[in-house]
Amino acid sequence: MFKVNDNYLKLPGSYLFSTVARKDREFRAAHPDKKVIKLSIGDVTQPLAPAIIDSLHKAVDEMSKAETFKGYAPDLGYEFLRNAIVENDYKSREVDVSADEIFVSDGAKSDSANIQEIFALDNKIAVCDPVYPVYVDSNVMAGRTGTYDKETGLWSDVIYMPCLEANGFAPELPKETPDIIYLCFPNNPTGATIKKSMLQDWVDYANRVGAVIIYDAAYEAYISEADVPHTIYECEGARTCAIELKSFSKNAGFTGTRLGYTVVPKDLKAADGTALNPLWARRHGTKFNGAPYIVQRAGEAVYSDAGKAETKAQIAYYMNNAKVIYEGLKDAGYSVSGGVNAPYIWLKTPDHMSSWDFFDYLLEKANVVGTPGSGFGPSGEGYFRLTAFGTYENTVEAIDRIKKM
Amino acid sequence: MFKVNDNYLKLPGSYLFSTVARKDREFRAAHPDKKVIKLSIGDVTQPLAPAIIDSLHKAVDEMSKAETFKGYAPDLGYEFLRNAIVENDYKSREVDVSADEIFVSDGAKSDSANIQEIFALDNKIAVCDPVYPVYVDSNVMAGRTGTYDKETGLWSDVIYMPCLEANGFAPELPKETPDIIYLCFPNNPTGATIKKSMLQDWVDYANRVGAVIIYDAAYEAYISEADVPHTIYECEGARTCAIELKSFSKNAGFTGTRLGYTVVPKDLKAADGTALNPLWARRHGTKFNGAPYIVQRAGEAVYSDAGKAETKAQIAYYMNNAKVIYEGLKDAGYSVSGGVNAPYIWLKTPDHMSSWDFFDYLLEKANVVGTPGSGFGPSGEGYFRLTAFGTYENTVEAIDRIKKM
Repeated sequence: MFKVNDNYLKLPGSYLFSTVARKDREFRAAHPDKKVIKLSIGDVTQPLAPAIIDSLHKAVDEMSKAETFKGYAPDLGYEFLRNAIVENDYKSREVDVSADEIFVSDGAKSDSANIQEIFALDNKIAVCDPVYPVYVDSNVMAGRTGTYDKETGLWSDVIYMPCLEANGFAPELPKETPDIIYLCFPNNPTGATIKKSMLQDWVDYANRVGAVIIYDAAYEAYISEADVPHTIYECEGARTCAIELKSFSKNAGFTGTRLGYTVVPKDLKAADGTALNPLWARRHGTKFNGAPYIVQRAGEAVYSDAGKAETKAQIAYYMNNAKVIYEGLKDAGYSVSGGVNAPYIWLKTPDHMSSWDFFDYLLEKANVVGTPGSGFGPSGEGYFRLTAFGTYENTVEAIDRIKKM
Repeated sequence: MFKVNDNYLKLPGSYLFSTVARKDREFRAAHPDKKVIKLSIGDVTQPLAPAIIDSLHKAVDEMSKAETFKGYAPDLGYEFLRNAIVENDYKSREVDVSADEIFVSDGAKSDSANIQEIFALDNKIAVCDPVYPVYVDSNVMAGRTGTYDKETGLWSDVIYMPCLEANGFAPELPKETPDIIYLCFPNNPTGATIKKSMLQDWVDYANRVGAVIIYDAAYEAYISEADVPHTIYECEGARTCAIELKSFSKNAGFTGTRLGYTVVPKDLKAADGTALNPLWARRHGTKFNGAPYIVQRAGEAVYSDAGKAETKAQIAYYMNNAKVIYEGLKDAGYSVSGGVNAPYIWLKTPDHMSSWDFFDYLLEKANVVGTPGSGFGPSGEGYFRLTAFGTYENTVEAIDRIKKM
């Protein structure tokens, strides 16, 4: 008699963004005359850059001829892409990462959900609160999080690191020692970052206590300030304690094209000496079959001279939106943060409204969809996330509407 | 102190096809003058059909303009693709499957590895022997298979269903009752199939004992005989006991383009009443972010009139190769099976050679790479798999060389 994985049944409600999408859909259906503006999910709106489009067309043509057709990709991803990654994302910053430490995937969401598989089930995770829900949910599904307390919204076996106004939305070293630490900078959802010296403290801590850091750097391209690290491997000792996740979704608009990569340094070993790089290679080779060839070529084009210039312009476009949101909300009297090194603006709901109440209020009054902070964890209650990924016109209109509420 | 998932450490050696690839690579490096012909991994060689190429170019163009650009895909996959699947793969056969039971993915390999996640860890799996390694390996990684016996090549907590010459390479109902049964027809690696009445017996058995069948129909398009089922849902009662996996890799050459889907009927429930469809939806929504839009459009094109005609011609091309291999080997005195409803030929090694000895012998003497039967499980020992996915010219040459050995 087969039984289900009852860890799944512990998950409260549905995935945050599915709920947001459902509420959005229902509102549009009930009010077909209203123009709803979506500043909720971190989904880009600008088309793929011309250099990327060119490379996609070329790769499609290759797939049309027997001589240049490509079947199964190499397990780790094509060398042309892994070499471009090493050259541009690491060597250019004098950071030591080699091509056989890069694992090309279909995106950072899959990687951030799957990476926990290579660790023991009794390992304890530490997460920021608020946090990108996938880190916690994937560990819930695996059975690593204990029981859920509906009152507090907390899991019994998870170490939470509150990110609040008081600490500048940056986590402090946890009192209880974790085995696996999830960090994301620039942060989703708060848009906060930490300086290199602070990240170095985390690396030193992880090495000291024997923890592994899962470092999500999906928003790295949005960093504008000089002392904010672009990769955790800028910190000394990170190669023995950190895995890094990267995405092409936000720097190059690949949310619907799907590409990402994970770095697992060969120096990263468990206490018993087991190296993580071959474990992840085994997972990759057994449970995944590579990103599409044409998409890997598109990824390569992101690193071409034209691709770099064009995607840089897109990032500037979104960061201008971030400025519009940040300053508009501030003018309107909101308490806001983020939006400087990240495409997210984190605002305090007015009049102590709950996050979901503010969601409904904003949708009803301004026809703007955002993301309730409480969806990212208990410490997100009373906060709200807006993204800079809309069009400029919609962003300006949304902020105007919010100002008039 | 973080620890690794020590189930990974139980896995013997590396993934079968990685080992085959390594031996191939080493031989080529040592003998740069030899022309090695690869009939090992089931990787296609014909380019994508013109109708698919057209739709890819069109979709790439859509990604280049803001008005038609696509970001994150719907969780289950685009409706245009799910509707085309329902219409062509199910309704046309008068089989009841609806669009919200279809989950579009990046391929059947991922799905066949991930599907075990929604089941309890103490559920017992039954697999054919020989079998596609991913079914077993993904369960090893999850910790569901007990201990590995190096002598026998068997896992203590897996129910093996030997597929031998004596039973026409078709599994018999197991003596011990499993919770999860993996079936693959047309079979990889043996190329065998079973008739609809036999599959009905499996469905009846699963419903009787409360087991779930994971039915891998990746090779469905290669069926040429009338009484062989194209989908398990042709059998009465399959909606309450079976999940079906499908791939675009073999019917349309998507091995390097990556697309597949899984069917989880809403009627499929565990003994406690928990429905599997929403569980898989939750997994899909939390740990995956959809197949690329352009690839989903390519999948839709497979079902267009031109796409159907063109991919049908490709399948005929490969099946002609299968005939060349089957008849050539038979002429040469080999004992062969498969190759009628499947692109795989399963041959008995001559003179009681071991599978890996024959691999080395074939590579050395004929410069042909195949797959050792023992790599698929202990009952595959003494057998060898050749695929029909090469070019016609290479296939003819490979068989000529084998004949001359």
